[in-house]
Amino acid sequence: MNFCSHCGSASLVSRIPDGDTLPRYVCADCGTIHYQNPKVVVGCLPVWKDKVLLCRRAIEPRLGLWTLPAGFLENHETLEAGAMRETLEEADARVTLDGLYTLISIIHVSQVFVMFRASLRDLDFGPGSESLEVRLFDEDEIPWEKLAFRTISRTLRNYFLDRHDGAWPLRMSAIEHSRLRSPKAPAQR
Amino acid sequence: MNFCSHCGSASLVSRIPDGDTLPRYVCADCGTIHYQNPKVVVGCLPVWKDKVLLCRRAIEPRLGLWTLPAGFLENHETLEAGAMRETLEEADARVTLDGLYTLISIIHVSQVFVMFRASLRDLDFGPGSESLEVRLFDEDEIPWEKLAFRTISRTLRNYFLDRHDGAWPLRMSAIEHSRLRSPKAPAQR
Repeated sequence: MNFCSHCGSASLVSRIPDGDTLPRYVCADCGTIHYQNPKVVVGCLPVWKDKVLLCRRAIEPRLGLWTLPAGFLENHETLEAGAMRETLEEADARVTLDGLYTLISIIHVSQVFVMFRASLRDLDFGPGSESLEVRLFDEDEIPWEKLAFRTISRTLRNYFLDRHDGAWPLRMSAIEHSRLRSPKAPAQR
Repeated sequence: MNFCSHCGSASLVSRIPDGDTLPRYVCADCGTIHYQNPKVVVGCLPVWKDKVLLCRRAIEPRLGLWTLPAGFLENHETLEAGAMRETLEEADARVTLDGLYTLISIIHVSQVFVMFRASLRDLDFGPGSESLEVRLFDEDEIPWEKLAFRTISRTLRNYFLDRHDGAWPLRMSAIEHSRLRSPKAPAQR
């Protein structure tokens, strides 16, 4: 943020507004306070019999790695509608939602990750413009080393554990630090 | 939004970017796409024995009406930390969280409302700067006609129903339209 989106001034300062507790970008000319808040990422874990649908990413970040269909919640959209829209966009798949499943606060990127369990309505799916490939995986076929995000591996690990237990508790958690995934990179940064 | 926050240009246009499906504010000079997404409101329902803690709002909107402590989730904050921070700020109260309880997509204002059940740790509470008054209410004392928001009345109604049942299912729902609350106003708008 270089300019005030309200008046166009370049005189933005970072300060704690009166009555507030955190620094915000404040316009020194018109006084507008520019709040920045976390975004919601919403998606689902689509299932057909014992198999799980994954998408191989056609876009950065994590191009070429596997993910569950998910993306940013849009304005004027319910969580459920967002999850179904992302699944349609990325996997051209129609699903029935089976309940909220994971809710992960991702601290370092200020996102709230909201994932539903879902059932594929049919096998008529395929890659949308953001996917290279879409396919179903048995548990022992999951490409654990080629998953795009920790939210995805966590959601899938919980899913297979809970499926063995036959119960679906809400899985709430947090991810507090980023971590490089390449084996050549330091384990933590 | 009148000016591009990246380059300061006043040439913002609303159009659907290539590969996108919804109109966004796009800078005709530098090409920056300005996405706008829902915000997360997080808070809790603090309980002491059979009583529920409510705050009377000292700020607009709904100044003077009763609410549960809640507010916008901040960047780099978990949902749980945000709920406890808002409770401390608005009611000067320390709580232990007892689980996620309501999750409401509020369509017309593009907010996701996330509410936890919580137990007050002690009776040492009082109004923060955004509250006129903070007090505990028995079920039959709840000021139903003077609650600030539909999210609050819905959360409290569910709470007392579920308390009678002795179970706490996650209550997910949506609010699709705004509604004036004054009895003299039209019932729906």
